[in-house]
Amino acid sequence: MAASDGEGSRVFRERDFRWQGVTEEAYKAEGTHFSGARRQTLVGAGAGGVSPGFETRYFEVDPGGYTSLEYHEHAHVVVIVRGRAEVVLGGALHAVEPIDCLYIAPNELHQLHATGEEPLGFLCIVDGERDRPRRPDAETLARLCADPALAQRIRT
Amino acid sequence: MAASDGEGSRVFRERDFRWQGVTEEAYKAEGTHFSGARRQTLVGAGAGGVSPGFETRYFEVDPGGYTSLEYHEHAHVVVIVRGRAEVVLGGALHAVEPIDCLYIAPNELHQLHATGEEPLGFLCIVDGERDRPRRPDAETLARLCADPALAQRIRT
Repeated sequence: MAASDGEGSRVFRERDFRWQGVTEEAYKAEGTHFSGARRQTLVGAGAGGVSPGFETRYFEVDPGGYTSLEYHEHAHVVVIVRGRAEVVLGGALHAVEPIDCLYIAPNELHQLHATGEEPLGFLCIVDGERDRPRRPDAETLARLCADPALAQRIRT
Repeated sequence: MAASDGEGSRVFRERDFRWQGVTEEAYKAEGTHFSGARRQTLVGAGAGGVSPGFETRYFEVDPGGYTSLEYHEHAHVVVIVRGRAEVVLGGALHAVEPIDCLYIAPNELHQLHATGEEPLGFLCIVDGERDRPRRPDAETLARLCADPALAQRIRT
């Protein structure tokens, strides 16, 4: 469930990183370019430009798992709430933990890796209307992997 | 500072509920209808419709303090990250704690009270373009305060 256009106020109570009344879903429909990841949409965007114009999602990634290496026109705001991550962002690796915040600018290639012993959990807020993520081409990937630390971390 | 239109990706590291490079500001410019509250804007909205179209703010309220009792056309998404709160919402009181989430629907009167021993801290996400908050009129307030629990909790 996600609160959206026409629905009333709601309190979503959390226990063990699950929110009451919110369904856990697959991270993406299919693909082998991510691992051990799933999502909960806490509050979806209002339809037809009605407030809110954004979606608030929670993603969880098993230890050793990762999100897909991707970029898109829309920005991300990420707030880490559980575990630890190494984030591929801006051509570098960043170690982050609760409750660090990331601003992922438009068209910035990014990937989150769960590096701690417990799952990585993070809120990710995006515009309701947004473009689909794209994966890097071979040339971009080769450029990125010229850095040994990135080459070792990145999964495609 | 707030990341916005034209700025690159950023990592905002948190320590003791302050984010590196983010300025703590007053909750509102002036007024006596709130108490012991302040804000940090982690990531502002992009200008001119550029992504993101939303703002991600962190609010902190001292024990015993409260935000203003208000309503507006734009929705709020609130995620509690520190302390405890009693929230006036939908004509009732709700006790919440980390990491409960609130969806505050358009035009829903709301007020957050810090009821724990440590400050109440919460993320609040809003549309970048939004209307100004309004405070309830005497009639609405009287209706709300017909409930003794609300009458005791509400501050104006």
